[in-house]
Amino acid sequence: MRTTSLLLSTLKEDPADAEIASHRLMLRAGLIRRVSAGIYTWLPLGLRVVRRIEAIVREELEASGAREVLMPAVQPAELWEESGRWDQYGSELLRFTDRHDRPFCLGPTHEEVITDLVRREVRSYKQLPLNLYQVQTKFRDEIRPRFGVMRAREFIMKDAYSFHVDEACLERTYREMHACYTRIFQRLGLDFRPVLADSGNIGGATSHEFHVLADAGEDLIAFSDAGDFAANVERAEAVAVPAERAAPAAELRRVATPGAHTIDAVSTLLGVDASRTLKTLLVAGEQGPIALVLRGDHVLNEIKAAKIEGVAEPLTLVDEATVRAATGAGSGSLGPLGLTIPVIVDRSAAQVADFVCGANEDGFHLTGVNWDRDLPLEATQIADLRNVVDGDPSPDGAGVLRLRRGIEVGHIFQLGTKYSEAMKAQVQDEAGTARTLLMGCYGIGITRIAGAAIEQCHDAAGIVWPEAIAPFRVAVVPLNAHRNEKVREAADALYAQLREAGLDPLLDDRDERPGVKFADMELIGIPHRIVVGEKSLDEDAVEYRGRTDSKSVKVPRNAVLDFLRERFHG
Amino acid sequence: MRTTSLLLSTLKEDPADAEIASHRLMLRAGLIRRVSAGIYTWLPLGLRVVRRIEAIVREELEASGAREVLMPAVQPAELWEESGRWDQYGSELLRFTDRHDRPFCLGPTHEEVITDLVRREVRSYKQLPLNLYQVQTKFRDEIRPRFGVMRAREFIMKDAYSFHVDEACLERTYREMHACYTRIFQRLGLDFRPVLADSGNIGGATSHEFHVLADAGEDLIAFSDAGDFAANVERAEAVAVPAERAAPAAELRRVATPGAHTIDAVSTLLGVDASRTLKTLLVAGEQGPIALVLRGDHVLNEIKAAKIEGVAEPLTLVDEATVRAATGAGSGSLGPLGLTIPVIVDRSAAQVADFVCGANEDGFHLTGVNWDRDLPLEATQIADLRNVVDGDPSPDGAGVLRLRRGIEVGHIFQLGTKYSEAMKAQVQDEAGTARTLLMGCYGIGITRIAGAAIEQCHDAAGIVWPEAIAPFRVAVVPLNAHRNEKVREAADALYAQLREAGLDPLLDDRDERPGVKFADMELIGIPHRIVVGEKSLDEDAVEYRGRTDSKSVKVPRNAVLDFLRERFHG
Repeated sequence: MRTTSLLLSTLKEDPADAEIASHRLMLRAGLIRRVSAGIYTWLPLGLRVVRRIEAIVREELEASGAREVLMPAVQPAELWEESGRWDQYGSELLRFTDRHDRPFCLGPTHEEVITDLVRREVRSYKQLPLNLYQVQTKFRDEIRPRFGVMRAREFIMKDAYSFHVDEACLERTYREMHACYTRIFQRLGLDFRPVLADSGNIGGATSHEFHVLADAGEDLIAFSDAGDFAANVERAEAVAVPAERAAPAAELRRVATPGAHTIDAVSTLLGVDASRTLKTLLVAGEQGPIALVLRGDHVLNEIKAAKIEGVAEPLTLVDEATVRAATGAGSGSLGPLGLTIPVIVDRSAAQVADFVCGANEDGFHLTGVNWDRDLPLEATQIADLRNVVDGDPSPDGAGVLRLRRGIEVGHIFQLGTKYSEAMKAQVQDEAGTARTLLMGCYGIGITRIAGAAIEQCHDAAGIVWPEAIAPFRVAVVPLNAHRNEKVREAADALYAQLREAGLDPLLDDRDERPGVKFADMELIGIPHRIVVGEKSLDEDAVEYRGRTDSKSVKVPRNAVLDFLRERFHG
Repeated sequence: MRTTSLLLSTLKEDPADAEIASHRLMLRAGLIRRVSAGIYTWLPLGLRVVRRIEAIVREELEASGAREVLMPAVQPAELWEESGRWDQYGSELLRFTDRHDRPFCLGPTHEEVITDLVRREVRSYKQLPLNLYQVQTKFRDEIRPRFGVMRAREFIMKDAYSFHVDEACLERTYREMHACYTRIFQRLGLDFRPVLADSGNIGGATSHEFHVLADAGEDLIAFSDAGDFAANVERAEAVAVPAERAAPAAELRRVATPGAHTIDAVSTLLGVDASRTLKTLLVAGEQGPIALVLRGDHVLNEIKAAKIEGVAEPLTLVDEATVRAATGAGSGSLGPLGLTIPVIVDRSAAQVADFVCGANEDGFHLTGVNWDRDLPLEATQIADLRNVVDGDPSPDGAGVLRLRRGIEVGHIFQLGTKYSEAMKAQVQDEAGTARTLLMGCYGIGITRIAGAAIEQCHDAAGIVWPEAIAPFRVAVVPLNAHRNEKVREAADALYAQLREAGLDPLLDDRDERPGVKFADMELIGIPHRIVVGEKSLDEDAVEYRGRTDSKSVKVPRNAVLDFLRERFHG
């Protein structure tokens, strides 16, 4: 393709409202343009990237036996009422009425529509397993759309749904999809990790997320430095360092801590490391408030806490009045001693000796507190309440956990019967008995991958596309062709030759200065560049440079094709 | 592909609510399933057809220099307010507010979004012409969705928009798109006609529709039996048969016609052919009612009438009270004689002699009326007010018009400055002067084409796909393979061979009776069928039958590939 026909529209300056590299570079390179908050137009250059991602996703899905369908974006409320999600789903579900005042929504996900389809079309176990997917524009009314296409309101997603008569069959397809996703992200050329995940609102038991590793990622993922374990921090089990608790060494003291209401303030005031303090949080329980006790330097994992029996879902901190009624003090002076409400202690918090905690009396803390000696640990429940931190033992026993930031680009779930039960989706099994279908669902954020790839692959000059999803594989840049017929002809001939060979070249045929062209080709991230200039043509050569190479190399004109093919990965 | 992995879901019975063949067959063949009124899921078989249509459309668009973009489905109201269409567009525009109460719509068309993009990105005439297209799901809230995907609410459309600095450039691109569309519909293998059309609400001067000819078409198109002229009946000029008006032969008489308020009733009562009667319709004018006079056997063309100076837009018949106030009679007894309001006479009505018309007196008509003798034709305006009829002279002078029904599958418009002026989309021309852009727009109904193709190509047994858009080119049907290992192996081998050769086969690997398989393969319209059975295998042969062939022919197994290739069109 020729640059002049492409609506190449690059910006020299960083756009003001773009917070992260991918958003900034997608705007600067002219991949997208904003239409409204979280709503974008994909320009030709950006759409080529999206189409390449889609093609790889489709190929691997088809190879794994999934079949493509296309469900509507506009979905009738009835189906969502049947599943119960019409009321459960929050404001991210864009609801509206049609001209006849019938309620509809713009689909953020399609469990209801596909379950309705399958319960009508599939009668027998013989038609199973069935795995149906679509590549479709979805809408999620994010309260604060940001990061460009990473957290957009309108986006393209590949969603697949599988149907089974038994657990073993679901498990097989789930594993096949795990393998399929692994192949997809490998082919995309991205550094990624499949991690154990929480299934959130979609429901179901087992789920894995696929993360592209990048510093701008919104998720924190933990993985073993020696084994296979990898999980979203939301989901990673925090194993207490296997060590005996030290014997009490200090006396229990009540000390005045006026104005010190936070762990930071208390540790500074008392000169104690935060890891030797315990914090106590009061959350709503099914029968009144419950105290959660963690080490001062640890962070409460809300998902883990919400799953503990007796804790109310969703997890909520109780208000200050309730705190005072339950403990006699404000939330800045709480501790586990003398509480009459249920206390749940984090595994690591249960190992600390001679610790500091609130005295349940405003302006006072206790120091030198010890489990068993000062308060019975036996009577309290010990649980995993916290986020893992770098250096924690890996839950599988192999090495320690390292933390990295990741961008979630894929998510696979074993849904079980959540939707099929609510919507009465059944088939007959071999014995002729009606069986409720088991389901899996499998998502990939197509447009988000474009952003995630840029987060992972960019430098000061711009995007560094993995070859598999680059909008063009090779750029042909003639120097001053508008003033030099020989250069123009040589560039046109090379362009024709590369096209002929299926190498998908971009010919930068603009009448721009060489510097402008070089900068643009680097900004838009074309992996390979051939410069056609008068000087090298005199030696019957052109100049090649890979996107991340530090300098160019001369290549004889008649050897360009072989030279490029050697450098191509795919 | 194997039938068992396809979710092939055929119905034996005609669905009750399907009014036309394509709707019925798309449901029966399992191409689509209804989700809500005018909203469908495309099953794997149907989606394959859609993808083939899309691929041909994309290839031809790219070849003609258009570049693909992807605009959002959800559009902010501001842009529509700028163009003025937020208020003009009726209830077909689905409007809603997001969670922050900001108004949006689901785009039925994208003139505003693309004009906004181009006015920001394009600065100079050097970047023009520019032709941008997208293939996208659109939504139009039809008051009465019907005919399956032909008049659906959610549908896939290819829309393209071109931008120019001058008329000549717009004209060139318009012609190129006309040629491009012609190539597209030729490649799709459909019998179609490009016809002159009215540009309707989209605006602009010149426009052509592309119609697939089929009896179920909602449009009537007229074309010369001897020349190139072809137009939508809405737009076809009605030329009066070039003949002198006969001299008056009858006397003017006032006759009682009690209870006869329609042309039918009056012609029956008086024993006169409807072509010798004139009907008078009162429509709203800018300065009060205007009388339109047509031959009793002709039909008013509302689009033509609305364009006449002085007639109010949109064309409305005035109410009965206004009729009586203006004429002294009810609308069943009107005639041009003695009217004091403006009268516009259709060209053909002006040629009738000795005609019958209402007397402007309830219960009475006049017979033997003659222009000039009884009422001056000179004082009235003569205009083209009617729809053409079969046998009318062709407006280009070549032959006569024939009428056919068509399904509009494409529409190209010269929009001019309608949107660019309202939205201030300008570029600098060579002299550095700001020039308002000229625009063209070009639509193709992708999903509608699937329906239109079936309307044109089906028989009693089912769909007869044109090869270019068939979901599979060839069906391999083993007979009783589950009971005969030899048949199964031969069918598998042939299937593998055809796949290898890129012939896109469907292997009907279901354990069904031969009759069921034959019926299904015919119903879903696969163009070529190879039957693998024990008997012919004994002669080392298989049986071939084209979808519309009356009988099968034996083909030696080692010659199947060459045999099929000879029969393929593409």
